[in-house]
Amino acid sequence: MNLRTSCTIKFEIPDPTPFILMLRPRSGGQQWVEREEFKITPHTPVFEFSDTYGNLCQRLIAQPGLFSIHTSSDVIISDYMDQGFDAPFVEIQNLPDSVLSYLLPSRYCESDFFYEMSLSITQGQLLGYNQVAAITDWLRENISYIPGSNNQPLSAIQVNERKFGVCTDLAHLGIALCRGLSIPARIVVGYLHKLKPMDMHAWFEAYIGNRWYTFDATQTGSPSGYVMLGVGRDAADVAIFNQFGPPVYPFEQLIQVEQLSF
Amino acid sequence: MNLRTSCTIKFEIPDPTPFILMLRPRSGGQQWVEREEFKITPHTPVFEFSDTYGNLCQRLIAQPGLFSIHTSSDVIISDYMDQGFDAPFVEIQNLPDSVLSYLLPSRYCESDFFYEMSLSITQGQLLGYNQVAAITDWLRENISYIPGSNNQPLSAIQVNERKFGVCTDLAHLGIALCRGLSIPARIVVGYLHKLKPMDMHAWFEAYIGNRWYTFDATQTGSPSGYVMLGVGRDAADVAIFNQFGPPVYPFEQLIQVEQLSF
Amino acid sequence: MNLRTSCTIKFEIPDPTPFILMLRPRSGGQQWVEREEFKITPHTPVFEFSDTYGNLCQRLIAQPGLFSIHTSSDVIISDYMDQGFDAPFVEIQNLPDSVLSYLLPSRYCESDFFYEMSLSITQGQLLGYNQVAAITDWLRENISYIPGSNNQPLSAIQVNERKFGVCTDLAHLGIALCRGLSIPARIVVGYLHKLKPMDMHAWFEAYIGNRWYTFDATQTGSPSGYVMLGVGRDAADVAIFNQFGPPVYPFEQLIQVEQLSF
Amino acid sequence: MNLRTSCTIKFEIPDPTPFILMLRPRSGGQQWVEREEFKITPHTPVFEFSDTYGNLCQRLIAQPGLFSIHTSSDVIISDYMDQGFDAPFVEIQNLPDSVLSYLLPSRYCESDFFYEMSLSITQGQLLGYNQVAAITDWLRENISYIPGSNNQPLSAIQVNERKFGVCTDLAHLGIALCRGLSIPARIVVGYLHKLKPMDMHAWFEAYIGNRWYTFDATQTGSPSGYVMLGVGRDAADVAIFNQFGPPVYPFEQLIQVEQLSF
Repeated sequence: MNLRTSCTIKFEIPDPTPFILMLRPRSGGQQWVEREEFKITPHTPVFEFSDTYGNLCQRLIAQPGLFSIHTSSDVIISDYMDQGFDAPFVEIQNLPDSVLSYLLPSRYCESDFFYEMSLSITQGQLLGYNQVAAITDWLRENISYIPGSNNQPLSAIQVNERKFGVCTDLAHLGIALCRGLSIPARIVVGYLHKLKPMDMHAWFEAYIGNRWYTFDATQTGSPSGYVMLGVGRDAADVAIFNQFGPPVYPFEQLIQVEQLSF
Repeated sequence: MNLRTSCTIKFEIPDPTPFILMLRPRSGGQQWVEREEFKITPHTPVFEFSDTYGNLCQRLIAQPGLFSIHTSSDVIISDYMDQGFDAPFVEIQNLPDSVLSYLLPSRYCESDFFYEMSLSITQGQLLGYNQVAAITDWLRENISYIPGSNNQPLSAIQVNERKFGVCTDLAHLGIALCRGLSIPARIVVGYLHKLKPMDMHAWFEAYIGNRWYTFDATQTGSPSGYVMLGVGRDAADVAIFNQFGPPVYPFEQLIQVEQLSF
Repeated sequence: MNLRTSCTIKFEIPDPTPFILMLRPRSGGQQWVEREEFKITPHTPVFEFSDTYGNLCQRLIAQPGLFSIHTSSDVIISDYMDQGFDAPFVEIQNLPDSVLSYLLPSRYCESDFFYEMSLSITQGQLLGYNQVAAITDWLRENISYIPGSNNQPLSAIQVNERKFGVCTDLAHLGIALCRGLSIPARIVVGYLHKLKPMDMHAWFEAYIGNRWYTFDATQTGSPSGYVMLGVGRDAADVAIFNQFGPPVYPFEQLIQVEQLSF
Repeated sequence: MNLRTSCTIKFEIPDPTPFILMLRPRSGGQQWVEREEFKITPHTPVFEFSDTYGNLCQRLIAQPGLFSIHTSSDVIISDYMDQGFDAPFVEIQNLPDSVLSYLLPSRYCESDFFYEMSLSITQGQLLGYNQVAAITDWLRENISYIPGSNNQPLSAIQVNERKFGVCTDLAHLGIALCRGLSIPARIVVGYLHKLKPMDMHAWFEAYIGNRWYTFDATQTGSPSGYVMLGVGRDAADVAIFNQFGPPVYPFEQLIQVEQLSF
């Protein structure tokens, strides 16, 4: 499947304002970026770096006045996301070093509180993929997915109390439940084709059977149409923009995903 | 100053249990490890790796039975920790890439909630070192340091409500307040000479004037005698041991620090 | 200056053939990639990774038949490359850790043989930028730049004996001479606007006054119009493609650089 | 097997002289460092860092006068090095990213010249371990190991012409021959129990069957008693000390390895 994604964000900047952006998709095993645009208007010196999770990030100082970011990319992805029923749990001692940090609690995923609950949700499941599938099913049935229901990320504990949330909230609880079982789990932020209403999206991945698998409790059926922008431990790591100093908010944010005909 | 540190931890292990340890000090700008011992009894295959913060970590599977870890090191440190009154705030755009992750909220440092409070505590201070010194003074006056007052790390919000805590708790609140001002801050776990009661200790560092400075709200006077074992975003990153599977607790944990005569 | 670069490489592949490509420019302090295309025909699974020098590399297995790679990018660069006359030599102890490997001899830069010669060429120069400028002038006067004069990279010793070479050869000798003076130096492969005849190009950078500066002994006058694709210790690190197994050669390789009007 | 290694190096320093040392063994899958000493006399500020190969390196400026380095460690290793007859060649596409740089030619391993020769030496062998074993046998029969026969590292081409060399020389030729077959290979510098005459030693490793295996053409019989200090592409990466500025030579260098009784 070939998807064209785009994201336009516009600000009115009062004072020189530092930003860190995470809007450049990386090519990887799951996606190939065949074309990409990344325009910053007015043009501003930008420094790009890889963060500790391997995301390409851009630093810049937006100058006072209209400041707009426009990115667009054509990405080739599989028609269907891989599923891995029965893929086995990886024993801690066999995990790659680079995956270990995804076992620890993080800002919005207090996994240290979810051991009992994880066990109960996944009772009787084969260790590994089937546990995470059970967690995802449980989220679908117990936590209502209500786009726009909050503006600030909630933590897994808060989501579990509130019983509804946005995509990020469901991902946080899913991640916390996986880590509670010693299954490495991470958040992904990116685009989803046909998401309704269209917006940036977030889902989670779990490390099972020696690879990462995708899970998304906000959707049903076979997952497809995902384009990854960034990965991290939770929403604190994968903001599409971090802005420092007195807060400024975009006056326009437009996300689009369309399928290309070939 | 030459210090000899040692740490002995003993477990009775019921089932094969994966551990990740962080007990090997690294030599660096602030400390030189002149002698070190690291004994694991019974001897077990151990894999060492550097985590994303540069800490040397060890992975192993403890086998059923008595399992003990003994480390000891002779470390050369300065007689006095550097202080840097008036050292300036580093603008976000001038921070090294590797420091940026210490600006973000993390598991126990919900810095996104502390902007107002940080401003209020540091009102009238020169931006930079003096702000962090004011935060540390505020912690000393407002949060009682009570060793042993809890067993689980608390988050900055919880510490701020409770008004007392252990060393880690004070560090978490200090870090959250610094990050609230866009000052990178991180936790350090290690040894402190003459700490009363003697135990593992935690304090924090803030990045000011292009380097890290040490702050410790649990102590007064000129800080000295610190030996660093590991650094990270908060306590979730710097456990001296992480243990996976059904919890096991040490039946003995002995920490010692003595000054060597030359 | 806005440049549009493109590179098309075509192969007729007899057997499944592993490739590693280095054809995706990274945005950085010196260049901003505003638009990029990267097409592989027929589409083939590609895995992208960052090598130890920070270059984005792509791995793939080309299948038998026609195999073509097409990349194109619009890049914003300064109108003039920075020059830094009198910028000072950085003492070894003050170099960043990440720069140290550029002091060591490498496959094509046997810097261990050039200490005397470097001293002689740079006699009387202020330590730092002016030494490297003197080396570059010496190369211009003593080593003839003859595009197409060889197909295999030559090492600095060989270039120094032969007294002529392609862009890579001049860069290798320049790098070896810099390292001979304990100045970190690295090769850059990329595009140069108005290069005659148009082709991929290589030049070198030296680390002076706490940053990298560009030097190119194949050109005269103020340098401008450089777009960087990759950096490394010498040509062994920055091949735009490495192919493994029985050798296959492109039957077409087309490089273009044009200036965009705004 | 428990080995106690030690290394003492003494210099008379005329002018302040920068050094980079590589004398601290890391614990890893093959060895566990149970005790270590690292004394620099007189004590000098030292900065430790990990290089791109994961070696722990130390930077310092030696001051004029007597300057001595003393390291000692007790290391637990297996009684026998693993051998892996019939372990399979890893296809390029399946190699970990971190191993790829060990396929490329380097300063002393001009693997680009050894394809034909490698094929001829390994004719009829199963791809993988058996090829490298055949290369090692060929080296034993064709390149005389003469300790002390040179002071400067030679490159694989030079060793192949000269037909004799020190440990490093044999390793360089072995590495070049492996890489000629697209088998990742790297040099290791370290200690070898019962080496005659006792000195620092160098050998090589090849990546086969998803792990590194040890090969040493200077020894016969089952290899055992190896303690690793550093790894890299060739001798340019793994000098136990690099010294910058006007050359100074140790007036004493003493290496010892003894077996501990338990």
